[in-house]
Amino acid sequence: MAKKKRVLVLTGGGDCPGLNAVIRAIVKRAAQTDDWEVIGSMQSFDGVLNEPTEIVVLDEKKVDGIHFRGGTILGTTTKGGPFAWPVKNKDGSWGSADRSEELLRKLQFLGVEAVINIGGDGSQKISQRLFELGLNVIGVPKTIDNDLSSTDYTFGFQTAVQIATESVDKLATTAASHSRVMIMEVMGREAGWIALHAAIAGGADVCVIPEIPYEIAKVIAHLRKRYQEGRGYAIVVVAEGAMPKGGFVYAHEATEIGNANKRLGGVAFQFEQSLKEAGMSFDSRVTVLGHLQRGGVPIAYDRVLASQFGVKAFELVLDKKFGEMVAYRHPNVISVPFLEAIEKYNYISKDSDLIRTARGLDISLGD
Amino acid sequence: MAKKKRVLVLTGGGDCPGLNAVIRAIVKRAAQTDDWEVIGSMQSFDGVLNEPTEIVVLDEKKVDGIHFRGGTILGTTTKGGPFAWPVKNKDGSWGSADRSEELLRKLQFLGVEAVINIGGDGSQKISQRLFELGLNVIGVPKTIDNDLSSTDYTFGFQTAVQIATESVDKLATTAASHSRVMIMEVMGREAGWIALHAAIAGGADVCVIPEIPYEIAKVIAHLRKRYQEGRGYAIVVVAEGAMPKGGFVYAHEATEIGNANKRLGGVAFQFEQSLKEAGMSFDSRVTVLGHLQRGGVPIAYDRVLASQFGVKAFELVLDKKFGEMVAYRHPNVISVPFLEAIEKYNYISKDSDLIRTARGLDISLGD
Amino acid sequence: MAKKKRVLVLTGGGDCPGLNAVIRAIVKRAAQTDDWEVIGSMQSFDGVLNEPTEIVVLDEKKVDGIHFRGGTILGTTTKGGPFAWPVKNKDGSWGSADRSEELLRKLQFLGVEAVINIGGDGSQKISQRLFELGLNVIGVPKTIDNDLSSTDYTFGFQTAVQIATESVDKLATTAASHSRVMIMEVMGREAGWIALHAAIAGGADVCVIPEIPYEIAKVIAHLRKRYQEGRGYAIVVVAEGAMPKGGFVYAHEATEIGNANKRLGGVAFQFEQSLKEAGMSFDSRVTVLGHLQRGGVPIAYDRVLASQFGVKAFELVLDKKFGEMVAYRHPNVISVPFLEAIEKYNYISKDSDLIRTARGLDISLGD
Amino acid sequence: MAKKKRVLVLTGGGDCPGLNAVIRAIVKRAAQTDDWEVIGSMQSFDGVLNEPTEIVVLDEKKVDGIHFRGGTILGTTTKGGPFAWPVKNKDGSWGSADRSEELLRKLQFLGVEAVINIGGDGSQKISQRLFELGLNVIGVPKTIDNDLSSTDYTFGFQTAVQIATESVDKLATTAASHSRVMIMEVMGREAGWIALHAAIAGGADVCVIPEIPYEIAKVIAHLRKRYQEGRGYAIVVVAEGAMPKGGFVYAHEATEIGNANKRLGGVAFQFEQSLKEAGMSFDSRVTVLGHLQRGGVPIAYDRVLASQFGVKAFELVLDKKFGEMVAYRHPNVISVPFLEAIEKYNYISKDSDLIRTARGLDISLGD
Repeated sequence: MAKKKRVLVLTGGGDCPGLNAVIRAIVKRAAQTDDWEVIGSMQSFDGVLNEPTEIVVLDEKKVDGIHFRGGTILGTTTKGGPFAWPVKNKDGSWGSADRSEELLRKLQFLGVEAVINIGGDGSQKISQRLFELGLNVIGVPKTIDNDLSSTDYTFGFQTAVQIATESVDKLATTAASHSRVMIMEVMGREAGWIALHAAIAGGADVCVIPEIPYEIAKVIAHLRKRYQEGRGYAIVVVAEGAMPKGGFVYAHEATEIGNANKRLGGVAFQFEQSLKEAGMSFDSRVTVLGHLQRGGVPIAYDRVLASQFGVKAFELVLDKKFGEMVAYRHPNVISVPFLEAIEKYNYISKDSDLIRTARGLDISLGD
Repeated sequence: MAKKKRVLVLTGGGDCPGLNAVIRAIVKRAAQTDDWEVIGSMQSFDGVLNEPTEIVVLDEKKVDGIHFRGGTILGTTTKGGPFAWPVKNKDGSWGSADRSEELLRKLQFLGVEAVINIGGDGSQKISQRLFELGLNVIGVPKTIDNDLSSTDYTFGFQTAVQIATESVDKLATTAASHSRVMIMEVMGREAGWIALHAAIAGGADVCVIPEIPYEIAKVIAHLRKRYQEGRGYAIVVVAEGAMPKGGFVYAHEATEIGNANKRLGGVAFQFEQSLKEAGMSFDSRVTVLGHLQRGGVPIAYDRVLASQFGVKAFELVLDKKFGEMVAYRHPNVISVPFLEAIEKYNYISKDSDLIRTARGLDISLGD
Repeated sequence: MAKKKRVLVLTGGGDCPGLNAVIRAIVKRAAQTDDWEVIGSMQSFDGVLNEPTEIVVLDEKKVDGIHFRGGTILGTTTKGGPFAWPVKNKDGSWGSADRSEELLRKLQFLGVEAVINIGGDGSQKISQRLFELGLNVIGVPKTIDNDLSSTDYTFGFQTAVQIATESVDKLATTAASHSRVMIMEVMGREAGWIALHAAIAGGADVCVIPEIPYEIAKVIAHLRKRYQEGRGYAIVVVAEGAMPKGGFVYAHEATEIGNANKRLGGVAFQFEQSLKEAGMSFDSRVTVLGHLQRGGVPIAYDRVLASQFGVKAFELVLDKKFGEMVAYRHPNVISVPFLEAIEKYNYISKDSDLIRTARGLDISLGD
Repeated sequence: MAKKKRVLVLTGGGDCPGLNAVIRAIVKRAAQTDDWEVIGSMQSFDGVLNEPTEIVVLDEKKVDGIHFRGGTILGTTTKGGPFAWPVKNKDGSWGSADRSEELLRKLQFLGVEAVINIGGDGSQKISQRLFELGLNVIGVPKTIDNDLSSTDYTFGFQTAVQIATESVDKLATTAASHSRVMIMEVMGREAGWIALHAAIAGGADVCVIPEIPYEIAKVIAHLRKRYQEGRGYAIVVVAEGAMPKGGFVYAHEATEIGNANKRLGGVAFQFEQSLKEAGMSFDSRVTVLGHLQRGGVPIAYDRVLASQFGVKAFELVLDKKFGEMVAYRHPNVISVPFLEAIEKYNYISKDSDLIRTARGLDISLGD
């Protein structure tokens, strides 16, 4: 039997519903060829760089039924990657080392002819650098935050929105029964996509997002208006990156956001505190969704999108279109160069129809 | 208090998850104006044409919390509409009458200045004719089948896909445990959108859709290949409009489809029968989803889309852009003239990326 | 290393949510001993009797995470068992053979010291006969139908009820929107447990069950009363074993039930037909849940019960309490001799509090 | 028309899935009599004691479809009740007043002949005192915590367990993908019922409950054992009332518990801190379910139980069995005197089969 060509698959960054559907689609598509086999590296590049290596053969049996499981069968990691590998200095402190050359050498040793790297913008940046070093890399975007501008949607996002919306539904009955203000914090990094979608879908009354710094006085005015109209309760959705006017620095690497987010629920509790200090008289409760948004069974939408990405990713390998990331532009699955893929962060535009819808539903954005 | 202008809302055709979210969005948006009030006609135009009339005032209190309920608080009907109102002839048989003029008169009497008609292609055609008669009509598309080419997506579709996919998930465990072929029929009229999405998301093995007439021998060959590879079970998703090669007439009004679909599950049972006659030796079971696909809580995706449609529909009234239907073209909510909206049925293109994905996942389409 | 004692696990009869949780619990409990190992026979006794045998070693890794998967990783079968093994006669017809002695011999050869047989009443009867032949057998009851009188509840039942109830919820919105009578058929064999629970939980208007033969005139009178009170729609839950007064023979082996049930949905369609013939003027639709009730993720209740059964089953092996079946008598997990376990079928008592509740909710039972 | 007798319904304490199903059942059952009508007091006794009163007539139309909605249409409150009504002193501080006589007078004025008080143990104590003062009171128990010893189960509990279990399922995929210890805090007051059920159903690795004070060293030893067996991740379920050995005072009013619980998630974060201080090297994350457990659609089990309670409660009124609370003793719905109902808190017994099951599944209880 002739030796088969090998494509290596790996998943990096935070886990995301749909990752396994991508892996399965790659394997199913590759199984239709005569000359390719798929292998996977555990915990992103760790599987290749660690001693001993942790490489698994991914055949159809291995991926049977994994499409509806959350997480990733390949494991993942949020540490630095081959260009900034964490190493312990002699004095016990941590530094980093560039192990990219070693990585390329090992991939060659393993007979890897192409790599499909499924990950967030950090992963895509690493892919671009490896591609520049001559590696045949294809990228698949992964973010529950929908913060990539080069694709209409990313898988995992709609599942996160669905979970957040179901949570709003649950909190709504308590809010109404107890006449309370229920404050719920959702993920989304520097973008408000999950928050705004969940607020619209769940019928929330207030939604604060990073793109629109809020004024607490405006929020309270809105709650009072509701109260005067006879509804003494409210649902407030807070994006983890939301910031009050003045306190927000609008930039990707903004350290202010980082600091505020240090602790799970930090933003929501701070928001509640601000409401109280500003004189809110309603009883209130905070809920922090946290990792519940990342896990569990992906909804059908995300499984379809992830499957489309997986099939396309392997076909890009067949077409030798390396240095590109798959993307969705309705109704097509396309590919874009890494550099283009990662250059622009996907914020919610203030004059988008989505914002107009929120305002039309009388959702206060705090501005 | 000055008299307010009235916009009449009605829902027609089969029910669809998201209808109430549209109604709520219209009411919430209208409440932001000083001079508009919303009323609803029960059971589509019946509420206006019946004696006594059944008109309800739709205020914010009335629509509070309805966004996550399936169905429509306005009721619906699938009978003919004002241009073909069913009337009983003297001999007891049924004929139809044109009551459109009476309708316009009554709407005037009710002080209705604009109508928002939420419905399928039948409803949009009626809207166009009423618009030609001088009525100020705005359309909102409603179909779980995703069969409108003028909008990227319609609300209700993703909920139907989600329900169908969860059903595949449930059948999959039985299929594997019992080594059975599980055949599931889903809705979709003459299009295979629900079937194909559920097949991809659920990891089905076979999916037959109206757009691609199937050969039963090809299906059996696929099942046998699976069996030889050690998987003695399979999931088959059958679109209600699917037809074998030769037996299918590809046209919107095709009576052949109508006949085959007369009875719930007709297509799936016929498919099972064909498999048996062609020598399939596997044990098999049929499941017909039926109305389970239309009901229940809409998923977040559909609630967002429906809310966007509702807000936009009322804003079209404000902008006097009558004779148009709202539509979604990512990421914008736009409007298109009725004539353009209904001229083209939205079939799955045989060389679409969605079909390529299905084939890449080794789903047999029977061709 | 000393040779370990072997306990063989197998699952028989229709699949049931919770089976995998039982298997996992047995394996986890056995892993706490030093001298036992667990093996599984595929497709009930087939795995032992077939050539080659299909026996799998069940260690903790193998059962990791299986508790929330429907079906059974051991596969199952509904054919006759070792005492009535289907064999093809020379003339091509099918007969049966007693392979019980061969089974015992093979089990001895495999080093099996005890067998845990998870299955319905058919399986328990086989277990009793094998126990009489000297085999060390423990039974675990498995039926979604809740039709065993020796245990308060069986796992799988509450999941079936939950799925049926969610389906009623979905149909309810369509029923109200379209002013329709929605008829839904659920499983339950000769008992009405699933039907009555789903009817109460879902707020149905009519529920017909095997224990109470119905009169169609009484059902129609109830629907008319509802209509006169202004509710022109209804939800009817039909147990698959329901029968009209006069046409029902109240016995476990009743062939009448068998005949009526031959075809999926037979009872529901027949019920609808009766309604129409008796003059019902409402529009109606039939939904047949079928295998959707058996599959999918078990709800927490069933996972807890199944886990309790699994741990207890293995502890009965340790205690050498063979010839007994585990059972639940709130709040204890006990065991009962096979003969006692299977002697009485669990029908709904006509003067039970459950029936009184149904009547108190104005659910017509057709009597 | 003869004047009807009035039964007043009210809901007190924290909201709980199933409350609306109880209310609906009371109304449906009362509608079958000729001489009773049901009214409801908003926000427990507030509706009667406030000026103006907030009393609603509860007819069948009002309760249509409410059985699958969480919360309570009557609203609720957690403040003191008629014997300890919060009043503001002249110096601005808060005291309490006994308004019970005023309550009785107002109930008489309203023509109330019987009261059905749905609430937790606090509510039952109030009911007992009002009963002693001559009021015709029936009690319905309400607690998601399952902490009443006089009934097998209370509605709301299984829904809370289901939500907690689904959350464990979601966290499990993240735990495995990231090799993390996921710590989840659930409700339950001084009892571990929700925690232990969710831990068993979800396949958790550690579960700490109030009934069994934990030693952090034992927990770490268990995690290390898992790690050595190749599973570098774990799910830990923490009951909100859990306490380390030595730091726990085992009493209903224990102030230690109160203090630890003051802040949402206090117990879980403290547990994580203890793990870190004791040298745990795993990455960890905390999730606090909070109010998500109380809201949303009740599962079928709870809707059935709540319906049974509601029908029975009204029948106790008919039977004039005042001073009693409804309860479930499988398979019967019974009633018990208030004094008996509230005298014993329902803790998990250390030698119960549930605990044995948890141990059998290798769940560390930290002891």
